[in-house]
Amino acid sequence: MTRPGEFEVIRRHFAPLAQSFPGALNLTDDAAVLDVPEGRELVVTSDALVSGVHFLADDPPADIAAKALRVNLSDLASMGAQPLAYTLAAALSDVIDDEWLRAFAEGLGRDQVEFGIGLIGGDTVATPGPLTLSICAFGSVPKGRALRRSGANPGDLVFVSGTIGDATLGLAALTGDLKGLDEADRNVLVGRYRRPTPRSVLGPGLIGIATAAIDISDGLVADLGHICEVSEVEAVVEASRVPLSAAARKNGAIEQLLSGGDDYELLFCAPASAREDVRRAGAIAGVEISEIGRICAGSERTVSIIDKKGRPLEIGDAGFTHF
Amino acid sequence: MTRPGEFEVIRRHFAPLAQSFPGALNLTDDAAVLDVPEGRELVVTSDALVSGVHFLADDPPADIAAKALRVNLSDLASMGAQPLAYTLAAALSDVIDDEWLRAFAEGLGRDQVEFGIGLIGGDTVATPGPLTLSICAFGSVPKGRALRRSGANPGDLVFVSGTIGDATLGLAALTGDLKGLDEADRNVLVGRYRRPTPRSVLGPGLIGIATAAIDISDGLVADLGHICEVSEVEAVVEASRVPLSAAARKNGAIEQLLSGGDDYELLFCAPASAREDVRRAGAIAGVEISEIGRICAGSERTVSIIDKKGRPLEIGDAGFTHF
Repeated sequence: MTRPGEFEVIRRHFAPLAQSFPGALNLTDDAAVLDVPEGRELVVTSDALVSGVHFLADDPPADIAAKALRVNLSDLASMGAQPLAYTLAAALSDVIDDEWLRAFAEGLGRDQVEFGIGLIGGDTVATPGPLTLSICAFGSVPKGRALRRSGANPGDLVFVSGTIGDATLGLAALTGDLKGLDEADRNVLVGRYRRPTPRSVLGPGLIGIATAAIDISDGLVADLGHICEVSEVEAVVEASRVPLSAAARKNGAIEQLLSGGDDYELLFCAPASAREDVRRAGAIAGVEISEIGRICAGSERTVSIIDKKGRPLEIGDAGFTHF
Repeated sequence: MTRPGEFEVIRRHFAPLAQSFPGALNLTDDAAVLDVPEGRELVVTSDALVSGVHFLADDPPADIAAKALRVNLSDLASMGAQPLAYTLAAALSDVIDDEWLRAFAEGLGRDQVEFGIGLIGGDTVATPGPLTLSICAFGSVPKGRALRRSGANPGDLVFVSGTIGDATLGLAALTGDLKGLDEADRNVLVGRYRRPTPRSVLGPGLIGIATAAIDISDGLVADLGHICEVSEVEAVVEASRVPLSAAARKNGAIEQLLSGGDDYELLFCAPASAREDVRRAGAIAGVEISEIGRICAGSERTVSIIDKKGRPLEIGDAGFTHF
């Protein structure tokens, strides 16, 4: 293994990522200091990724960096929070060498600029197991205004950003479960799996508009189910209105696309009177928003998928789980 | 493996730990909300622990829980921060079953009460590798008042809390490297390794008194070296003044005790004029404080250990590292 010791790894690869954030104290103290702007409160999320489970061991290091950071940014976006800072706890396996770390840190650095976030701390340890990355990300929202899963009301419309199901097909292409793709489709789908696009501008733009929001990590049906569960409502989604990329339309079955995970699009509810506000928030964020269904009263807290004629479609899987 | 799925693990074992903290939103949202009290700012630290590296696989689950939380609480204490909340990202190996998780969560729950901290979020994933726990802990300090490593001045005295070197002997006893201990000594030393005592009252009590502080995780010499490095000073420690437990005195060589890691005591500097304040802070926190040396001017940033007659002692190891 050609990797320097812990302190040198931090000095060489991670400390430069902390320079933009004064409270990181150059990673030379036991902890970082984070001052939350007046009138705002902190939103905190944490996601762990394990090599071979959440990404593939031979994925490019910069893509792994982007994914680790972006799944957390997506959680912040779903709460309406603006990115602020993050910590990284990395358990490095034997195969992680200095060159890998260099490419990984470069990937983090590019995303820090793109999403306006800085590294403020963390830990670097060795593991005999697979590479394991735990990021804790911090954002801020106006006090008391964070978007929640629990506010959906009967009559609300259901919206989703971007396109659905690309990532699950990208993963299938990488594992060999999806064959015969043309090269262009493969690149699109694999790219969507490896480098999700957190909706970091849209999320904060939905504060005061959306009644409930979640990011799609377990699959559209499962995640809408989470909203129904805590909002104590039911939902009906019209399958034909779910936005699909050309590549997904060509290569996936609708059941698979609606239940596949890892899209990291925002799924949210808003009253019909807010349709124009939703459209405007999407335009400002530069992302397509699709209206796909409706929230209904009902104690079953279920999600129904219907076709154009209103007939129920059976979605076999209750959602994708990494566990 | 008799372990329920991710959502059930969270519902059964972790959500109850989040009930005391309203901003945790019962772990049913994508992130937590953390409101920092007026006039204070957040201190953030993150530590990762890998089974077989930072604790032993057959350590009692409640002790593993305590250690994972306490090493983070110790980092907060070294910055002078009062504990507030934490997130837990757990990568669970195959051998972790429901019974193990129950005992682990019970251990966390007891420490939450003892240290006044609440779980606010995290992630639970499966790993083919060893159990890996990443905790990100949050505390608060009056704005701009966090203790740092960088403020030590020539002429300052060097203080340390509790006793030094017990944990490294406890680890040696567990791994079989230290044999022939009597049972009472073994229990004391192993207990100090498995369940460190973060100085959560002392740390905040040193704000306005200490000029620099760190917690001892890499070893007394190495960690004092970290202070010297960023404070740009040198330090002299008189070996005979370093506080040792009876068990350590009987079973360890001074070189080993001064360089062994995992004590999680506070090491700090303060001017001689603050001696009485230091004594009082220790009394309030209920922990013995020992004056062990002095900060000197010098560009080498080294730590010298001397005997009673002022002759230098050679400490072979530059400090313990987990990496």
